[in-house]
Amino acid sequence: MSSRLIECVPNISEGRRAEVIDAVADAVRRVDGVRLLNLQSDASHNRSVLTFAGPPDRIADAAIAVAARAVDLIDMRAHAGEHPRLGAVDVIPFVPIGATTIDDCVGLARQVGEALWTRLRLPVYFYAAAASAPHRVRLPDIRKGEFEGLAEKMEAEGWAPDIGEARPHPTAGAVVVGARKPLVAYNINLNTPDVRIARAVARRIRESSGGLPAVQAMGVRAASGLAQVSINLLDMNTTSMAQVFEAVRSEAEQHGIEVADSEIVGLVPLDTLLDVARTHLRLRDFDRAQVLETQLME
Amino acid sequence: MSSRLIECVPNISEGRRAEVIDAVADAVRRVDGVRLLNLQSDASHNRSVLTFAGPPDRIADAAIAVAARAVDLIDMRAHAGEHPRLGAVDVIPFVPIGATTIDDCVGLARQVGEALWTRLRLPVYFYAAAASAPHRVRLPDIRKGEFEGLAEKMEAEGWAPDIGEARPHPTAGAVVVGARKPLVAYNINLNTPDVRIARAVARRIRESSGGLPAVQAMGVRAASGLAQVSINLLDMNTTSMAQVFEAVRSEAEQHGIEVADSEIVGLVPLDTLLDVARTHLRLRDFDRAQVLETQLME
Repeated sequence: MSSRLIECVPNISEGRRAEVIDAVADAVRRVDGVRLLNLQSDASHNRSVLTFAGPPDRIADAAIAVAARAVDLIDMRAHAGEHPRLGAVDVIPFVPIGATTIDDCVGLARQVGEALWTRLRLPVYFYAAAASAPHRVRLPDIRKGEFEGLAEKMEAEGWAPDIGEARPHPTAGAVVVGARKPLVAYNINLNTPDVRIARAVARRIRESSGGLPAVQAMGVRAASGLAQVSINLLDMNTTSMAQVFEAVRSEAEQHGIEVADSEIVGLVPLDTLLDVARTHLRLRDFDRAQVLETQLME
Repeated sequence: MSSRLIECVPNISEGRRAEVIDAVADAVRRVDGVRLLNLQSDASHNRSVLTFAGPPDRIADAAIAVAARAVDLIDMRAHAGEHPRLGAVDVIPFVPIGATTIDDCVGLARQVGEALWTRLRLPVYFYAAAASAPHRVRLPDIRKGEFEGLAEKMEAEGWAPDIGEARPHPTAGAVVVGARKPLVAYNINLNTPDVRIARAVARRIRESSGGLPAVQAMGVRAASGLAQVSINLLDMNTTSMAQVFEAVRSEAEQHGIEVADSEIVGLVPLDTLLDVARTHLRLRDFDRAQVLETQLME
């Protein structure tokens, strides 16, 4: 595969209506040179995550096509779900693969952001490596107030969109576009319906409340009815999946609650899972090159 | 990655003389389309394990080349080592990769077996999935009597070789050729120098003493001085690495002993380690296709 590759992971605010999700996925499939790697929908979040990869110019086309379909088919005035969101196409992150740099992704984010306003009249916030100010780096800060509070937020000091007028798209809200390193979306379900326990655990483990570095977490209710700690691992070299699982297990135990199960949303780098095995088995002298398939893929 | 790939893991009866080991490894490296993935020598076993992979016809050439060099350079009349063995090239297992089936490997074993007799006058026993009778499935049964007892064994009821005359090659003995699923060699070190505890744990967990199916185990002393449970996992779908780790941990605990660490010898299939992560994290709905690298290698 080419060394100039970018991954794009848009989140759209639809996790229930299969025909809408299919239509958005088809918009990706129709772009030559782009591969749809993963599509995952969560009914209780009412949200879907698409992962696709390809060369930068083709990725831009696919990202714009996704946004166009989402704006067309999703009316945020009728949207309800567990996950905070600003718009129909809620966030469009660009992620470097291989020799591609984060700066390449910032450039692409800017270019796509311009197109989204010009073509779709969608106001754009830039975040993460593409952010225009320090208080606009983190998604949770940008999303605070959600779609319902967006008109008011856009008027507030420091919260005008980076591109477009300070007025939400009537049905599609706004979109957050940015460039970031690979991230793992990871949900841990607790053996209780009590969402307050998931929220308490999330507060203990997330960086913003003094917990584990490079970890974002919130407590929500999963489709199963169980309380769920919904986590983003921003840098697995800083805090590993094994560490965050153990932290959640241990915090839940303080409440007399066990972990029911967990789920990885979308794609995960091989090293993240090898590290779980390495930690659990107390493996010593283990090298990634010992994995048969890593030898065969070279 | 081609879907028609086979792995071959010959064991040769030389673990000390570097020039012999190198010459045998070079025989593999010279075959176009075959990749030498791993080479591990054990001086006290006086034995080396080569791992290589490629398309079936190329793998046959490489396996025959390995045998030819081993027959040429190793004289079993002068061989001593800890590990039981029948011949200079002691065993040649073929292992399916990806879409390849075990039947493909049985076919290849038969073809290579014929060539080893025709070209090298090496008598051949087929084992595992290629075995010609139930009592000839297991390597330890075929190897019983070793090189020194081979002439007598070949005369005994039920122990004539599958191919060739019932008389050992004078310097190279015989070769065991077969087809098997991937096997993982896995050692778990206990926090004690008492080898009797490792032996007791091994007896409890291995299939031959009524323990876990598809698990071979013995207690030994590791180079570090710690007691070690040395394990072969014959079928990870029957007993997984996570299960065997937990069994050893739990049995050792009965003796008041903890697991110090563990080590994987040679190569391990990706699925084996993914299963450890899946078990430890209680992952649900996790698919191998969610590993980013499995998408990019296609």
